[in-house]
Amino acid sequence: MPQTPRKVSENIMYHNLAPSSILKIEQNSPRVPPKRLHAATRTYSTKVLTEDTMNPNMVTLQYAVTGPIVVRAIEIEKELAKGVSKPFKNVIRVNLGDAQAMGQKPITFVRQVLSCVSNPSLMETGMFPKDVIEHSKAIINDCAGQSIGAYTEDFGVRVIRKHIADYITKRDGGIPSNPENVALSTGASGSIKHVFEMFATHAEKKVGVMIPIPQFPLYSATIEEFGLGKVEYYLAEEKNWGLDVDELERAYQENSEKYNVKVLCVINPGNPSGQVLSRQNMEEVIEFAYKHHLFLMVDEVYQDNIYADGVKWQSFKRVINEMGAPYNKMELASFHSSSKGYMGECGVRGGYVEFFNLDPKPYFHLEKMVSAKSGSSVLGQTAIDCMVCPPKPGDPSYDQWLKEKTAILDSLKERAKLVEETFGSLEGISCNKLQGAMYAFPRLLLPSRAVEKAKSLHLEPDFFYAKQLLESAGICVVPGSGFGQKEGTYHFRTTILPQIDVMKDMLARFTSFHKKFMEEYR
Amino acid sequence: MPQTPRKVSENIMYHNLAPSSILKIEQNSPRVPPKRLHAATRTYSTKVLTEDTMNPNMVTLQYAVTGPIVVRAIEIEKELAKGVSKPFKNVIRVNLGDAQAMGQKPITFVRQVLSCVSNPSLMETGMFPKDVIEHSKAIINDCAGQSIGAYTEDFGVRVIRKHIADYITKRDGGIPSNPENVALSTGASGSIKHVFEMFATHAEKKVGVMIPIPQFPLYSATIEEFGLGKVEYYLAEEKNWGLDVDELERAYQENSEKYNVKVLCVINPGNPSGQVLSRQNMEEVIEFAYKHHLFLMVDEVYQDNIYADGVKWQSFKRVINEMGAPYNKMELASFHSSSKGYMGECGVRGGYVEFFNLDPKPYFHLEKMVSAKSGSSVLGQTAIDCMVCPPKPGDPSYDQWLKEKTAILDSLKERAKLVEETFGSLEGISCNKLQGAMYAFPRLLLPSRAVEKAKSLHLEPDFFYAKQLLESAGICVVPGSGFGQKEGTYHFRTTILPQIDVMKDMLARFTSFHKKFMEEYR
Repeated sequence: MPQTPRKVSENIMYHNLAPSSILKIEQNSPRVPPKRLHAATRTYSTKVLTEDTMNPNMVTLQYAVTGPIVVRAIEIEKELAKGVSKPFKNVIRVNLGDAQAMGQKPITFVRQVLSCVSNPSLMETGMFPKDVIEHSKAIINDCAGQSIGAYTEDFGVRVIRKHIADYITKRDGGIPSNPENVALSTGASGSIKHVFEMFATHAEKKVGVMIPIPQFPLYSATIEEFGLGKVEYYLAEEKNWGLDVDELERAYQENSEKYNVKVLCVINPGNPSGQVLSRQNMEEVIEFAYKHHLFLMVDEVYQDNIYADGVKWQSFKRVINEMGAPYNKMELASFHSSSKGYMGECGVRGGYVEFFNLDPKPYFHLEKMVSAKSGSSVLGQTAIDCMVCPPKPGDPSYDQWLKEKTAILDSLKERAKLVEETFGSLEGISCNKLQGAMYAFPRLLLPSRAVEKAKSLHLEPDFFYAKQLLESAGICVVPGSGFGQKEGTYHFRTTILPQIDVMKDMLARFTSFHKKFMEEYR
Repeated sequence: MPQTPRKVSENIMYHNLAPSSILKIEQNSPRVPPKRLHAATRTYSTKVLTEDTMNPNMVTLQYAVTGPIVVRAIEIEKELAKGVSKPFKNVIRVNLGDAQAMGQKPITFVRQVLSCVSNPSLMETGMFPKDVIEHSKAIINDCAGQSIGAYTEDFGVRVIRKHIADYITKRDGGIPSNPENVALSTGASGSIKHVFEMFATHAEKKVGVMIPIPQFPLYSATIEEFGLGKVEYYLAEEKNWGLDVDELERAYQENSEKYNVKVLCVINPGNPSGQVLSRQNMEEVIEFAYKHHLFLMVDEVYQDNIYADGVKWQSFKRVINEMGAPYNKMELASFHSSSKGYMGECGVRGGYVEFFNLDPKPYFHLEKMVSAKSGSSVLGQTAIDCMVCPPKPGDPSYDQWLKEKTAILDSLKERAKLVEETFGSLEGISCNKLQGAMYAFPRLLLPSRAVEKAKSLHLEPDFFYAKQLLESAGICVVPGSGFGQKEGTYHFRTTILPQIDVMKDMLARFTSFHKKFMEEYR
């Protein structure tokens, strides 16, 4: 989209400067002879980089998870700290999938390994179990100069890539994974951005990317950032947020004139929608993608977060392989992260992508680009290594690791159930089963008077609700409009991450607020 | 640059599939009724993503530092490991500014803090000095949930941004720095990419970015990646790689029709050129940038690597401020890193940018984009914190920290001198003073027979030389063409990072190779 910066003659430059600046230039600048100033061609503003002259994609990019509701939440926290009286004592932030920020304790094994690779002299102290030391040494010995202070290979430390491939092979029932197809990055977000960037052709007919609605807004933000075309398909709320092939087909057909649709993104388990796709649904989606020659981008970062009884998660890679030809030749990128699951190590920014059936040339070009920015952090890579290569039965760290892991996953399951039950018991709310991931995305059946009130304030009704919830009950959720929803429906996303006592407090505060709200606008 | 993917009818798809694949589709795919296959519109290739359909900027992007010479060096290392006989026992890699990969020991204080923030239980063991613990606690206490496992604020942990601002204020003789203008990133590379991305308008008339030649190829690679226009200005080799204003003017004038030139990049101390700019030269450059209304991007990551006697480094921010109005209103982005200096913590990927006089709106839009990818690693940020807030006199860690720091910087100085002297003593090589940074960029005065020989092999003469140097002496440098050089001149870049014994071995091997090479082609 060509955009010509507004250029004006040098005369106008002076009009645009504040009078005091003109004075300063004239009085205090013996270094600049007037001829130089006049010779210069200036843009309208006195700044080189402004909202009008900068990358327009960054201007239009939206990211709701940390949007205005969160900004207001931070303000309220500051007001509380100053002693301003509120109907609550603290803000409960359930806007972000950030487990440790909400009190989840780190896994001991992970932190022991991180400290040993950071400070190898600790391995001589006798303080650490043998498997922690072996694990740490395996990583360090594969770093240049036997130090995490050295740059790694572009796509990560070789032994870590091998561990990831071994983990995937085992997870997928023996379908082989090749370490050469695994690339580590700064969080899974880093890899997701890399793949989108590969599709950014800047052609007049944009490359179209199919994303679910509701979706995790990293997707819409990155599509905007790289000038891609957003093709929205609605998840079927009435089928527990499953993917409906007729809806995929509608979205494809309605956009294939405008865009060159090439990519299908699926988030499974779903964020914010919390569903786990059935095998049959996955096969339908794969057939659809095959039919339209689409590249599959599958966000599988919540693969360890499965709560509902009888529900089993499978990777898309496994399914396309088990479906046989021609599906097993489809191009696929699958993302995973150490920020979710039971570890929740968001701050260390570990992530990876496994490519399958990717043409070697795009992979080569991606590697050059990653090489130019010198790759990702060894410590983020180390967190991934701990995830894919945890202690084994018989290892000295195994019992503690298993106990901590199980406690976290069990507690998440309990919290998922609590949230589901509370929302299920309230008038004006309908909530699907939380099969997986870390979120609930309940639907608000708002009274028409509440909708009218919101519209009279020029607010989206779900934003209005979320704002009231924050101001009255100190609960910070993200309005559904940040993730997308069908016209005329209203939702919000809450995480299930507060620890159990805080969660109970939140649900009580929520219930009381919601009943009052419904009463007020009935 | 509009690029229409080659589309063909579904018939051609079959021609393009290998015969065995057609067979497989026909024999093994009961799931796909033929009507579906025929309904699909396919691109010419069987892959969705190919070199022809992907982001063309990533295809043309070049990054020489890890280019073909390095690939060959890795092959040779493998051959040596297999027992293949070579005229040398090992490959000495001097292609990359990666100190710890070349044997530099990490600073104890840094690693102690990294291990304590990773594993806070270590702080209770009594093993660590009081200042290490205080430092670590200050960081952890400012993380959400008091854990490095939580996402940080988009631009980094607040106390670390404050420490950076304090450090800059002190460094610049009291000129104030505001923590709000400091943004941490994955290495300085991350910040450099962010700033370039802000300038990527995709307008028909590209935004032009002035970069030095020779340059660190992250700049040319990122300019290519974001579709910007590269405006090359040559450093004056005869003036110890200083910036000549007439040359800046030439580059600007010759490109201002084609590009909308908006950015001037300066690397100081220079990479690969090793110069430290004089105050007078900086003022000339600033006047030039002011005259043409350019945004200053200054790469100051080698600010602690100053070796030449009597040479003093100053920040561009300090100079524009001390020059007074109107220069002190100029927009500036300055980059720094924990990968260089005396710490050399490349693998932890710490870096930051300080903006000065940036319009708040572009900054806001950058923050949204960084927020969508969830920011940078707390551990990279921690390394930066140790750099800007090291032990103070009287602190228990101070003496050891000072001793280690001084030893590293003294040793680098000694090695800079050794390299300078060796290159200075050889016929056919001319080398400027190594005033700063970590590199020498000597000029090769190649005999015409060597140039002819290279050309007969369709190689750049400096690539030919570097390849011979690798094959005959096991020394891996980067040819000057990777950084850019004046037509008809030939250079290479070597780091000064091998430890002193290895450095002596390298210089002996180099001297012997070079003399033979000159003899052969005289």
